[in-house]
Amino acid sequence: MHQISSDMKNCIDQCLACYAECLSSAMGHCLELGGKHTGPAHFKLMMACAEICRTSAHFMLIGTEHHKHTCRECAEICRQCAEDCERIGEMQACVDACRRCAESCEKMAA
Amino acid sequence: MHQISSDMKNCIDQCLACYAECLSSAMGHCLELGGKHTGPAHFKLMMACAEICRTSAHFMLIGTEHHKHTCRECAEICRQCAEDCERIGEMQACVDACRRCAESCEKMAA
Amino acid sequence: MHQISSDMKNCIDQCLACYAECLSSAMGHCLELGGKHTGPAHFKLMMACAEICRTSAHFMLIGTEHHKHTCRECAEICRQCAEDCERIGEMQACVDACRRCAESCEKMAA
Amino acid sequence: MHQISSDMKNCIDQCLACYAECLSSAMGHCLELGGKHTGPAHFKLMMACAEICRTSAHFMLIGTEHHKHTCRECAEICRQCAEDCERIGEMQACVDACRRCAESCEKMAA
Repeated sequence: MHQISSDMKNCIDQCLACYAECLSSAMGHCLELGGKHTGPAHFKLMMACAEICRTSAHFMLIGTEHHKHTCRECAEICRQCAEDCERIGEMQACVDACRRCAESCEKMAA
Repeated sequence: MHQISSDMKNCIDQCLACYAECLSSAMGHCLELGGKHTGPAHFKLMMACAEICRTSAHFMLIGTEHHKHTCRECAEICRQCAEDCERIGEMQACVDACRRCAESCEKMAA
Repeated sequence: MHQISSDMKNCIDQCLACYAECLSSAMGHCLELGGKHTGPAHFKLMMACAEICRTSAHFMLIGTEHHKHTCRECAEICRQCAEDCERIGEMQACVDACRRCAESCEKMAA
Repeated sequence: MHQISSDMKNCIDQCLACYAECLSSAMGHCLELGGKHTGPAHFKLMMACAEICRTSAHFMLIGTEHHKHTCRECAEICRQCAEDCERIGEMQACVDACRRCAESCEKMAA
């Protein structure tokens, strides 16, 4: 990838991994289990997390300075999503992906 | 559309209209003209504007409170894109779409 | 919008309208009602429909001939989604948006 | 990732890698070089390739059978993009990412 630092490459990878984990967990795990897993607040947070991760990766790939703002928002939503997934339970892979992504995005937002 | 106020519906419409205008102008106008129209800074700003408009619409359609942050960022990028398109010239439709979107997103971000 | 016929402009509008309706219905209606509305097959179809509509609009805005293939797939998924929403009930706005989009995409795919 | 075979996981990875390579090359390489690199046909093909890769990954993550159709289209566009990048020259990373993605998507489309 052109003109992209190794720190940014890592952040793009974490964003795409978290996007993939949140979307596939929502569709292949939460919908199957139902109950609190399809509670509107939880499920919408999962979808918002998937989307902001997808967008933050996109901004870094475009190579625009505005990635700092999408990364800041991404870190915030990922932190919330990790906490909510921990509260719901049985979602450790999602918790981990969100935490790694948040940490990485916080560095890029600075 | 469910549970969406008329102000928010309008903002979704402005975001999707600005996304469509920025993307189609970049692809069908800027690439044809070349020169300053494909200058990296200008072209990347057009692509970032299209993406944040697409994302802000998505957040409002999800119905998450985080739309306030994507709308704030959307307003900022749209303002910059409008100014840059005005500077480049021959891009009035894009200038207008960006200004309408910025105004609408500022209200939703408040 | 540059170099885009009025038929194609109409199809882009129908795709974006169907995307908006499917996503906001899934998030603001299906998640609230639960039961058959969050059945995995139905809900995943809604999400696939939203995504292919978003993508088909994107391809037409790029101005690539490949939009014929995404429009063909979009028409097929919209037909299925309309039928499934009719079967589930209480989703007439989604049924209508899917049918209008399918009709419009079939023309563009020809 | 839930309910996703290792073949499909690999295909998701290839799609996201090809999306990232096409988008970052277009923005960080083609726009810098200009000339044939920003020729409308070439540049629009790069953008269409990035988008269909993003969408095919999304369909597999949703877990819908329709991924077969998006993967078939993805393979076709990736093949064309690889050929075009080879013709233009100085884009070997993009050629390689497109070929790997096409191969992987052909398997998933079968």
